[in-house]
Amino acid sequence: MTQRVAESSALLLGALLPGARLADALLADLARATADPPGITRAAFGEGEHYAHARLGAAAVALGAERRVDAFGNLYLTLPGRRRELPALVIGSHADSVPHGGNFDGAAGVAGGVAVMANLVAQGARLPRDLTVLITRAEEAAWFPLAYPGSLAALGRLPPEALEALRSDTGRSLADHMAQAGFDPEPVRRGIAQIAPRDIAAFIELHIEQGPRLVAAGAPVGIVTGIAGGLRYTGGRCIGRYAHSGAEPRFARHDAVLGFNDFVTALEREWDAIEQRGGEATITFGRVESDPAQHGGSRVLGDLGFTLDLRSIDAAILAGLERRIAGICADIAARRRVRFELGPTFRWNAAVMDAGLMAGLSRAAVSCGLAAPPIPSGAGHDAAAFAEAGVPTAMVFVRNRNGSHNPDEAMEMEDLAAAIALLTAFVIAFDG
Amino acid sequence: MTQRVAESSALLLGALLPGARLADALLADLARATADPPGITRAAFGEGEHYAHARLGAAAVALGAERRVDAFGNLYLTLPGRRRELPALVIGSHADSVPHGGNFDGAAGVAGGVAVMANLVAQGARLPRDLTVLITRAEEAAWFPLAYPGSLAALGRLPPEALEALRSDTGRSLADHMAQAGFDPEPVRRGIAQIAPRDIAAFIELHIEQGPRLVAAGAPVGIVTGIAGGLRYTGGRCIGRYAHSGAEPRFARHDAVLGFNDFVTALEREWDAIEQRGGEATITFGRVESDPAQHGGSRVLGDLGFTLDLRSIDAAILAGLERRIAGICADIAARRRVRFELGPTFRWNAAVMDAGLMAGLSRAAVSCGLAAPPIPSGAGHDAAAFAEAGVPTAMVFVRNRNGSHNPDEAMEMEDLAAAIALLTAFVIAFDG
Repeated sequence: MTQRVAESSALLLGALLPGARLADALLADLARATADPPGITRAAFGEGEHYAHARLGAAAVALGAERRVDAFGNLYLTLPGRRRELPALVIGSHADSVPHGGNFDGAAGVAGGVAVMANLVAQGARLPRDLTVLITRAEEAAWFPLAYPGSLAALGRLPPEALEALRSDTGRSLADHMAQAGFDPEPVRRGIAQIAPRDIAAFIELHIEQGPRLVAAGAPVGIVTGIAGGLRYTGGRCIGRYAHSGAEPRFARHDAVLGFNDFVTALEREWDAIEQRGGEATITFGRVESDPAQHGGSRVLGDLGFTLDLRSIDAAILAGLERRIAGICADIAARRRVRFELGPTFRWNAAVMDAGLMAGLSRAAVSCGLAAPPIPSGAGHDAAAFAEAGVPTAMVFVRNRNGSHNPDEAMEMEDLAAAIALLTAFVIAFDG
Repeated sequence: MTQRVAESSALLLGALLPGARLADALLADLARATADPPGITRAAFGEGEHYAHARLGAAAVALGAERRVDAFGNLYLTLPGRRRELPALVIGSHADSVPHGGNFDGAAGVAGGVAVMANLVAQGARLPRDLTVLITRAEEAAWFPLAYPGSLAALGRLPPEALEALRSDTGRSLADHMAQAGFDPEPVRRGIAQIAPRDIAAFIELHIEQGPRLVAAGAPVGIVTGIAGGLRYTGGRCIGRYAHSGAEPRFARHDAVLGFNDFVTALEREWDAIEQRGGEATITFGRVESDPAQHGGSRVLGDLGFTLDLRSIDAAILAGLERRIAGICADIAARRRVRFELGPTFRWNAAVMDAGLMAGLSRAAVSCGLAAPPIPSGAGHDAAAFAEAGVPTAMVFVRNRNGSHNPDEAMEMEDLAAAIALLTAFVIAFDG
């Protein structure tokens, strides 16, 4: 991880250096305070997340921002505008991380938001409307099996049953963790919005890219075109019959491995077909697991567990895949004498980005001399919750190597500085 | 499990009932004394195995047998023949079981051997040569990762390093367990035979079938044609690169699941090709396992572990498969941008059954009016150790439902009675 802005390139950024320097310092503090080798850990409602909220909150307050914490524990840092009755510009993302993750997933975006404030203050610019940096909680589904509950709770859209979701490491509920941290599950349970969509002029999320497209394109930043929706089978199983590998002849086998193999092959053919029709999707088996109490070198496997993650910006493609899967499983069951239990599903909608905001971000990039190509987001983000609530929403990705959710993620501070410059230009131009 | 001989069918067996009734009583005692729901547990060098040795030993001694225990703890129960200088007939198998296994795997064979003695005594028949029932120890590789160490030790053929193998549940060595049970690792370490191959006229193992061939054939017993040799990769891995399922585009993926899928597909094609050439083999993936510390619904898997078990009576088929696997892995690695680490291998030789003994067993079956089709053994057995040592060796399988190594194995006592009748006829006819 390059922690320092390269001075040579930073010359270009001129007056924007105060923000980039602050972001660098904030991220370095976070990396130190939440180190958990390899990488960093900031558990949702855990110490690392609390630290990040406190550190970024203090930095914004020092710049003159107002500080508000909502019932869920989301943090709103607001630099007052000249006309406070106008809907605010909100720059938001999360501060939690996966266990042993990288320092930038989430944190780079909110540190970048505070850095935009620092640039405005350094330039003596007061915006017409409030600029809020919103630091959400609990975005990483590694902790609670939920998609951005912090953003949903802020909007009064978190389903009440989500409060009973259990944190993966403690086995305790979201409501329990909230209460322990001093927050109040009741307004969240009753669906009371902590920020009204009508009070938001635009929600902009700054986030590192979690894939390699910007690296491949040679661009420091990208403007997100949409966030894929998804359908995940979290507890799939191919069920055959256990037997002795030597003693069970081929004709008698109900081999879960061969049944699953046919399933993977069929899903890959579906992926080919989608792409041949010009469509876009991802199809991923993220867990493939025989039962340690049953498997072994001399077993024919009678059970193989898996997860299947399907994503597309196009809901029709997901619906088509879901229909095809039922037929595929039935075919394989008959041919291989196995059966499939697909188990619980987890669904999230695709999010459309606001065309006007995308255009504004493009103009800001041009004004900064930055290449900022359009880029899809396969991963879910807080921004999706705001888009679904009808808030005009956009996202900026920062180039990042080695993916995220791992200690090897590698964003260059220089690229974050470019994104901060872009956003500073964007917020200044927003009402002008 | 049917514990009683069906009286109607037993009428056919006439004078052979004493043996069948004794076997029934012995197996019922073993089931009671070693119950460990579900099923029974007789750990190698554990209490259950000790009980089985003691109970079967006492039954044979009551019939007039001599009792000897060798340095490894194998038990020799010998009904003296008229000419004691002649090489003995040996009926042998093991008395241990897998954890929560069935009552018949191993025990049915040695109880059946003692039952043959009971039939001889009931008929007042004294054989020309000694008849020994050999009850080995530690045959189940679930305890020590070894193929029939008891039989190998009896023959002075156990590699010394095998004494350092660790028992799966205790983590203590074979030598340690032997010493604790009052046996002596030293002669075993020095390779001193506890029974000389030249003192064995024939080694016959009676064992339940662990597959469904006799059930499919409608035959109570079968005569084994050979024991498959094998090659097992115990720690294979397909290694790709972990990534975020939504963020990593298809072009950038190194997906271990897709690499492994191609491997399974290729191995199944090899199996088809072997069978199309008239060959015989089994190909089994007994463990398929992503890393619980790394896998998850939103991961592209970077590592998938597996075992691969290859078996055939034909060594050339195994050697051919091993050669092909190297090429298959290289092809997939190039196409899928993954790599394979096949890890340690575990090999065992095929065992050829003695043609003369097979013919003698067939004649005995005809004399009892029993259908006894030829049947291959895909699983390893004590008999393989004797065959490899040059002892004329044969095996009789008893029909059994639901496989073995599980509490649902289901041998009918009536079928065991048929096997006891066959072996009684065989030993009587052996010298005459």
